[in-house]
Amino acid sequence: MAPSLPLVPSLDLPVVLLSHRGPVSFGRDPVSGERTASRGAGGLVTALSGLAGHLERAVWVCVAAGQADGEVSAEAGDAPLRLALDGDPRILGEGDVADREVAVRLVDVPAEVHEPFYGVIANPLLWFVQHRLHDLKTSPSIGREERAAFEDGYVVANTLAADAVVAQVERAGGKAIVLLHDYHFYLVGRLVRERCPDAVINHFVHIPWPGPEAWQVLPPDMRERLLLGLLGCDVVAFHTRADARAFVLCAQELLDLPVDLSAMTVTTGGRTVHVRAYPISIDVAALEQQASTDASDEHLADLDERLAGGQLVLRVDRTDPSKNIVRGFTAYDLLLTEHPELHGRVLFLALLQPSRQDVPEYAQYLADIGAAAASVNARHGTGDWQPVDLRLASDMDLATAAYRRCDVLVVNAVADGMNLVAKEAVIVNERDMVLALSEATGAHDELGSFAVTLHPFDVAQQADALHAALTMSPVLRRDRREHAAQVVHRNDVRRWLTVQLNDLADLRHG
Amino acid sequence: MAPSLPLVPSLDLPVVLLSHRGPVSFGRDPVSGERTASRGAGGLVTALSGLAGHLERAVWVCVAAGQADGEVSAEAGDAPLRLALDGDPRILGEGDVADREVAVRLVDVPAEVHEPFYGVIANPLLWFVQHRLHDLKTSPSIGREERAAFEDGYVVANTLAADAVVAQVERAGGKAIVLLHDYHFYLVGRLVRERCPDAVINHFVHIPWPGPEAWQVLPPDMRERLLLGLLGCDVVAFHTRADARAFVLCAQELLDLPVDLSAMTVTTGGRTVHVRAYPISIDVAALEQQASTDASDEHLADLDERLAGGQLVLRVDRTDPSKNIVRGFTAYDLLLTEHPELHGRVLFLALLQPSRQDVPEYAQYLADIGAAAASVNARHGTGDWQPVDLRLASDMDLATAAYRRCDVLVVNAVADGMNLVAKEAVIVNERDMVLALSEATGAHDELGSFAVTLHPFDVAQQADALHAALTMSPVLRRDRREHAAQVVHRNDVRRWLTVQLNDLADLRHG
Repeated sequence: MAPSLPLVPSLDLPVVLLSHRGPVSFGRDPVSGERTASRGAGGLVTALSGLAGHLERAVWVCVAAGQADGEVSAEAGDAPLRLALDGDPRILGEGDVADREVAVRLVDVPAEVHEPFYGVIANPLLWFVQHRLHDLKTSPSIGREERAAFEDGYVVANTLAADAVVAQVERAGGKAIVLLHDYHFYLVGRLVRERCPDAVINHFVHIPWPGPEAWQVLPPDMRERLLLGLLGCDVVAFHTRADARAFVLCAQELLDLPVDLSAMTVTTGGRTVHVRAYPISIDVAALEQQASTDASDEHLADLDERLAGGQLVLRVDRTDPSKNIVRGFTAYDLLLTEHPELHGRVLFLALLQPSRQDVPEYAQYLADIGAAAASVNARHGTGDWQPVDLRLASDMDLATAAYRRCDVLVVNAVADGMNLVAKEAVIVNERDMVLALSEATGAHDELGSFAVTLHPFDVAQQADALHAALTMSPVLRRDRREHAAQVVHRNDVRRWLTVQLNDLADLRHG
Repeated sequence: MAPSLPLVPSLDLPVVLLSHRGPVSFGRDPVSGERTASRGAGGLVTALSGLAGHLERAVWVCVAAGQADGEVSAEAGDAPLRLALDGDPRILGEGDVADREVAVRLVDVPAEVHEPFYGVIANPLLWFVQHRLHDLKTSPSIGREERAAFEDGYVVANTLAADAVVAQVERAGGKAIVLLHDYHFYLVGRLVRERCPDAVINHFVHIPWPGPEAWQVLPPDMRERLLLGLLGCDVVAFHTRADARAFVLCAQELLDLPVDLSAMTVTTGGRTVHVRAYPISIDVAALEQQASTDASDEHLADLDERLAGGQLVLRVDRTDPSKNIVRGFTAYDLLLTEHPELHGRVLFLALLQPSRQDVPEYAQYLADIGAAAASVNARHGTGDWQPVDLRLASDMDLATAAYRRCDVLVVNAVADGMNLVAKEAVIVNERDMVLALSEATGAHDELGSFAVTLHPFDVAQQADALHAALTMSPVLRRDRREHAAQVVHRNDVRRWLTVQLNDLADLRHG
């Protein structure tokens, strides 16, 4: 194995990582029929991929996503694949070396398990509960199908993932650091604890954790199993202190367990579970590289020409109801109604990646977004000027160009575990943009002091805040943007993982 | 004044009571043009009416509801009207006496204030926040209109009510017990405190109080003013300990005030505010009288004949989304699908009072109720047997007859401050009915041990619980119903007020 930078000198244990999606996804070339491999997408995978190559003796367990993944998984058996992460992803054979590599173990989850696990329970049920997106008047309505999806989908998928994690811990002699990730695998911690008592287990929850009230939407037996699953870990980690506190309150109110809200611990079965907050961040160097490609430069030149000195308001999001895109357009509409002097001088570019269109609420939300954008353009637009430019696609080169050029970045989410878009934009922006940031994002804890705060349900306040952002003095804009960038530079994604691993090492030795 | 039972021997102060609706509402006879007076409706008004006649030196301040109320208010000026409460309500002239009377001060709130106060802020905004009925994906969307409705409606109506309360306290020499009621008047406590420092002020919140997270739906300035208004009181009271605790957590997390979660106090401006729980109840004697009228007997005979020995499942509710009527029918549908042996042997009678049909969500909910009922009848009904009988009306005689005859009473509310229907039914039922009661009602604290608990979002569990209720052994049914009735007899509405007044007297002397 190529030499790699030890992030954590005191970490003398191998690491076993679990997340739903992994660093690579396999397919077949439709012409040649040959196996292909492409990088995994998404913020978490990007963050972990940037780091896994630096960890010695790490194995990344993830779910085999399609048929080709399943074949690779079957061929490999229990032994992890070695994957190169420098350049295009590829499987390394015996004797092959790469600058950065990671060992991957794909877990084969049969489609009839994966569909209820992922399509009924994880998304949308848990996602909706944790982002408070249910219309409780009628939704959720938990019937036999949902209960079966929990037992035969979520529980089975978690058991399969736990089996794979346990196998890797046992390969390492039973001692390992186990890093579990996100809402797909709340039951795994306890399952691993039962079979690997010497493992140090950490579960990181990347989406918001609401208080006990919100969890009461789930049947008591279901919510208790999820909580007890997490409490099988040594550490349960979140992006913010508020989320961590809400988790401790859940243990107290829903499970009647003794807790310490100062020390942020829960006592269960004679063990102490630590509840902690580590705000995730971005890979600054990788982002800067992405923002300096020729393609990004070309998009930037196009934008500059089109704007002709006007101001650019930008948002970059998945079309998820939690992102609050419709209220954002409503606020912009109000801004244009109350400030006709802005007409023709401002453009709202919304780069939106369509998301989960098989879920009815998401399909409806995409329709609502289109209607809201059209309404703003119809009310205020002219033949020469359409105030909203709605782009439904995922284009990183266009996104980095827009980050560089924007005057205001809008993040008005109803709820967001962190929101990495805010962190990305302040790093590569070239015009001292103003960050307009929802108080309901994890990022607001770190960046709120250098942002214009948005209240997600108050479109009147959002319109006022957008106006304040568009008219802020250059001195103040520069000062705030630079401070925000410093925060992100100081706490980049490598530090995020290093601090966690150091704390886990302390826990083990302490 | 006729002799009346002193409820609270140590209470040497006059009482000033405030609620939105009062014990009487005036009108004009369409033929004779003469003024008419009718009793106020609703659980709270009924409870308070039953007691106000027993309080010496009590004045009840309420909002003038229509034109005739306004005229009466204008004629009376600051002096309260004396109203007889024995028999039909009537205004007492000088020298007139009645067995029970109450002094009433009607506050004239102009229609242009009342509409935004009541129709935009109190209902639906505060009601929806406190029952968690918003579909947060899109609602609320607080714009200029909602902000204006708060300032020019809610704040103004609260100021007018506070003026009237202050005038009555000043008439009593500045010392009085002030009993403020419900979500219409959260700002009044502080306004009265500023002008009447010697008054003892109690605010009772009759609807659920959610935790800080739910309140974050309101703009920070709005929610802070509501909280600070309540914290102007000496005591803030709720039906349950959970609601009281949630209020203390709001003071801590949203206002950053020092609190004591054991003593249930909040410290603000050098004062200690006590947060307490007093579960409201019913007037048992009055209910028993209502349930023994000829009209009730006739309805009972009709029901008996129609059921012919079959089982009656009953619900009695307003058509409010918080009552969870649609999921109730869905659960019943599942029950009939899984238990064909019940076909033709069970009837679900839903006595539903249409409510707030000017609010779009309520109109839609009524339509959804009709659709759900029709769907059950279409799927399972025959020419001889329709499994759901949906009655959209308010008929107390039919309700008491159904209370007496039912085998199962269903209360599956998503959220309910108390729910008095549950308490009424266990008192007058004649067949050892089973109470099927949502864990999200205040009543569940007192009656849950003697009920079949319903989980409001889990229709599969509700179907199972209905089956358990319909097949419970006679011995167990009797034992539970009797215990539940004992609880209600012990804590009737008179005790509810007596305990509060005693505690307030202690507070004053302590």
